[in-house]
Amino acid sequence: CDPCRASQSTSGPNSFSVRSHTCGELRSTHVGEVVTLCGWIQYQRHGIFVILRDFSGLTQVIIPEESRTELKAFCDVPVESVIKVTGKVRHRPPGQENLNMPTGEIEVCAESMEMLNSCQKLPFEIKDFVTKTESLRMQYRYLDLRSSQMQHNLRLRSRVVMKIRDYLCNTHGFVDVETPTLFKRTPGGAKEFLVPSRDPGRFYSLPQSPQQFKQLLMVAGIDRYFQIARCYRDESSKPDRQPEFTQVDIEMSFVDQAGIQALIEGLVQRMWPEEKGSVSTPFPSMTYEEAMRDFGVDKPDTRFGMKLVNVTEVFDGTDVLFLRDAHRRAGGCVQAICVVNGAKHLKNKDLESINHLALDHFQQEISVVVVKTDGTWKSPLSKMLPESVKQSVHQLTKAQPGDLLILAAGQQDVVRPLLGKLRLHCANLLEEKGVAVRDPTAFHFLWVVDFPLFLPKEEEPGELESAHHPFTAPHPEDADRLFSEPHMVRSQHFDLVLNGCEIGGGSIRIHDASVQKFVLEKVLKEDSSLLSHLLEALASGAPPHGGIALGLDRLLSIIVGASSIRDVIAFPKSFRGHDLMSGAPGFVPKDELRPYHIDVKWPTAGDGTKQ
Amino acid sequence: CDPCRASQSTSGPNSFSVRSHTCGELRSTHVGEVVTLCGWIQYQRHGIFVILRDFSGLTQVIIPEESRTELKAFCDVPVESVIKVTGKVRHRPPGQENLNMPTGEIEVCAESMEMLNSCQKLPFEIKDFVTKTESLRMQYRYLDLRSSQMQHNLRLRSRVVMKIRDYLCNTHGFVDVETPTLFKRTPGGAKEFLVPSRDPGRFYSLPQSPQQFKQLLMVAGIDRYFQIARCYRDESSKPDRQPEFTQVDIEMSFVDQAGIQALIEGLVQRMWPEEKGSVSTPFPSMTYEEAMRDFGVDKPDTRFGMKLVNVTEVFDGTDVLFLRDAHRRAGGCVQAICVVNGAKHLKNKDLESINHLALDHFQQEISVVVVKTDGTWKSPLSKMLPESVKQSVHQLTKAQPGDLLILAAGQQDVVRPLLGKLRLHCANLLEEKGVAVRDPTAFHFLWVVDFPLFLPKEEEPGELESAHHPFTAPHPEDADRLFSEPHMVRSQHFDLVLNGCEIGGGSIRIHDASVQKFVLEKVLKEDSSLLSHLLEALASGAPPHGGIALGLDRLLSIIVGASSIRDVIAFPKSFRGHDLMSGAPGFVPKDELRPYHIDVKWPTAGDGTKQ
Repeated sequence: CDPCRASQSTSGPNSFSVRSHTCGELRSTHVGEVVTLCGWIQYQRHGIFVILRDFSGLTQVIIPEESRTELKAFCDVPVESVIKVTGKVRHRPPGQENLNMPTGEIEVCAESMEMLNSCQKLPFEIKDFVTKTESLRMQYRYLDLRSSQMQHNLRLRSRVVMKIRDYLCNTHGFVDVETPTLFKRTPGGAKEFLVPSRDPGRFYSLPQSPQQFKQLLMVAGIDRYFQIARCYRDESSKPDRQPEFTQVDIEMSFVDQAGIQALIEGLVQRMWPEEKGSVSTPFPSMTYEEAMRDFGVDKPDTRFGMKLVNVTEVFDGTDVLFLRDAHRRAGGCVQAICVVNGAKHLKNKDLESINHLALDHFQQEISVVVVKTDGTWKSPLSKMLPESVKQSVHQLTKAQPGDLLILAAGQQDVVRPLLGKLRLHCANLLEEKGVAVRDPTAFHFLWVVDFPLFLPKEEEPGELESAHHPFTAPHPEDADRLFSEPHMVRSQHFDLVLNGCEIGGGSIRIHDASVQKFVLEKVLKEDSSLLSHLLEALASGAPPHGGIALGLDRLLSIIVGASSIRDVIAFPKSFRGHDLMSGAPGFVPKDELRPYHIDVKWPTAGDGTKQ
Repeated sequence: CDPCRASQSTSGPNSFSVRSHTCGELRSTHVGEVVTLCGWIQYQRHGIFVILRDFSGLTQVIIPEESRTELKAFCDVPVESVIKVTGKVRHRPPGQENLNMPTGEIEVCAESMEMLNSCQKLPFEIKDFVTKTESLRMQYRYLDLRSSQMQHNLRLRSRVVMKIRDYLCNTHGFVDVETPTLFKRTPGGAKEFLVPSRDPGRFYSLPQSPQQFKQLLMVAGIDRYFQIARCYRDESSKPDRQPEFTQVDIEMSFVDQAGIQALIEGLVQRMWPEEKGSVSTPFPSMTYEEAMRDFGVDKPDTRFGMKLVNVTEVFDGTDVLFLRDAHRRAGGCVQAICVVNGAKHLKNKDLESINHLALDHFQQEISVVVVKTDGTWKSPLSKMLPESVKQSVHQLTKAQPGDLLILAAGQQDVVRPLLGKLRLHCANLLEEKGVAVRDPTAFHFLWVVDFPLFLPKEEEPGELESAHHPFTAPHPEDADRLFSEPHMVRSQHFDLVLNGCEIGGGSIRIHDASVQKFVLEKVLKEDSSLLSHLLEALASGAPPHGGIALGLDRLLSIIVGASSIRDVIAFPKSFRGHDLMSGAPGFVPKDELRPYHIDVKWPTAGDGTKQ
């Protein structure tokens, strides 16, 4: 009965719809066609124009003089009301074209208009230039998502995910397998949400990743698994973490580390949005040791230099005790970074912030040296050091007049991360002053490889814990040392880093049940019976296998240049893990807790458990 | 360093792998090539043949005489061990080809073999003909999944889902949006799992579907949304329900019911596996009233007839009181089904089971009439009814000698479901005897439309509850009656039925805030403040919209002919909601509950809450 139905598209955004076209697609080639548009009233002009909006753009609708009495009311309806317009496409009168608007050559001359839903109230205007507070955006997320930026982000996400699936499933024979999210608590899984069951005292837990399932699928002969997997992590204290997040989860049998890396390089190339330029492969690679040595961090931002320089030996014969003695202690060193043009751009307040960062986060004194235009040092150290030492420092760090040198002396495992942090801090400070440090359109991918397999436990440095997870295989060159000096063993773990953010981590897994048992029982001193199903699985014909997980939210936020992953998630939680729109989490009546055999234990005054 | 690397595929299942081919792909065209295979030892023969298996098939590996000393050990390794073989493909000697095996023309003459992982123990044999108990299958799911049937099911699922995504995303402009699973408890959401948060007394809940989010996305102007969505339902008591399941979740703006139906018909055609024949569209449609009238159920299995026949009037003048009086009471009737050849095939035991089903489930007596070869009735009723009445019944039901007639008298809303159930029961009974009732290769899709919007509450028949959910829009023809006689209003809900199973439900939603408020407050008598965010959203420019959700697990189980949805889920839970492999749900130490401010309330003796 709808006359437009007959002429409808069988594909694209208008199939099966009561509209014939979207608000963004009409051009002068459509002139003369009768079209039906549906959309939101963006604004009206002169009582004769209604600007209609949908996800694809804007179209100008003109109410012709002859229908003005009948349709005039449509110029008075509130903005953001939803209407349907049928009319003929015509050229705008000469001189009235709007070249800034893709549909700016035409307008639709309304023949009939229908009010579909009147907008009754709005907490803020739906205009891209209206800034809203974060909490207002979250509370009225359904309005915030109408912005062109959020529309772009969510639509890009959908397209990127589709290309990832196409690459894995259609090109490389991966099987998309859904794994359970109601699972068993992992030993030591302190960050796992619990879900009470109807069996008294028994709880499911929401896993942090499908790690066990992906390995079991390899044992099951699935050969190549992937899943865009929902994962859960209860880290209420960390900023900008979401309690649920999404990872591209991949596992393969009969593969080595190079194979997984090549797969991912191809994946990134395929999913990469055209408008962001091309991605060249293979990605550069550096070892964990190199990353820590040169950048002081295991996820270096390689878009700029300012590398750490070891200047320990330069100070060997000097009188400045804290510098001279640094490398005489085990693990001691003196390291420097040279902030190019730092002296020129950074003010006293900036230098203070550098000192504060070092003290607050690392309880460490640093020496900030201004290299003056004549090449001399402005620093308390200046008088205490012979010129030759300063020259050596200049030589090693390539410092020039106008630069800033930051020196730190102490234990290597403190000094490196400290200077790594200051390197990023100085880059940010310079960029705030308008100095180009990093190309904002550049995307630097990097593999970091050869991580240590174990690290000393923070609370008990005599004990070891897994650097990543207990299923990571040792590096083949270090395999024998696993049994004699496990703390020296490198792993087959590797991270994918983009612009200084870790966006993925993968590894070859242990497929030998006895090695896995040794790691769990002898190295990690854990109760292996909690993982007996996995150990049994490894013993019943497990193929060699490995895999990787990419953090989809983080990756997308870098691609679109968002400051928070909240901007690539449709309905994110707030910093504190709340849904400001619905009020989740919410209170639950006592009788609805009864089937789950739990009671709320309300904190009492002075009880440390209350947050 | 691996010589096979150089010759490797850049796509397909062997890309990035240490193998060059799968175990299922070698043919006589490969003769002469040096290949590397990885797989599981299926069995060995004569101490010279090793049959290697992977997901794609089997390949015969022969250990040549000259290497027998060196490689002989591989004939003694346990089955299901994982090995790597490199060797040359050659024709099998004439007469030794195996035409039942896709790779049966060739064998691989081993040049080198490597043990990748020895299989140490197996709870059961990995052979398709070895039957295992359900609990053994669940406990060792990673071995159960090695069976060719489960490999087929999971791989088919992956392919079907890929085609669904391609259709929605690439062909019709849908946006794949992930919605949260940590949400707020729905009013009356008694089947929602709870997730305690670190805020005392506050809980997230795991939603039964993304219903609210999909509607909010329409308000947000996303226009077309889909998601292969994980949903949660705590229905521990129902058999063959999974606590987590997957639905194809779809919502569109500016669409009517016919538009959604056409979209889904195209979707089913696109995703349908070729080997299952073609699907013709449009699907037939019947109203809820027609379905109840003819089949006694709202999800009719239309693969066979045996429809319900109203024979009320025939008995109007007879002396059999329970029949005669049936339609004199309001809502009363006499209905019949004719089981073709039922008298010929069904024995006394079967007739007893029919009577029991009626009594046990419906507390209702029925009359089972055997139509003898001479056309007379074998039934206690026979003598009490004049021949003309029997003839009329024959005429209406088309009963023939050798058939069985089942008569039921009483309230229509009891009699119809009763005969609907008996209809299916008789079909099952006949099929057990080898009578062809339903074509096992047929797939009958059916739309059921015009459902009632509200139903009387079971506990309080004077009150109304939503037949589906409170967001369903009234049928346009009944819109005005919503305010005067809501119990008479039909809805714009529609179900998709396949072979008698409901595989999807959709509707046009209410987009008018005042109508939604009226339904919640005046009809359903619910506290609308719990849904204030949705009401506010509808008031801020909500487009007309509707959508549908398809039950992916059920749909796939029907396609592959599985008796349970467990056979299309990689890691399902048991009937009781347990993971028999890991032991989930598990006990959690008291101190790990502390951050969530909950305590276990252990049931005491005689406490009814214990299951």
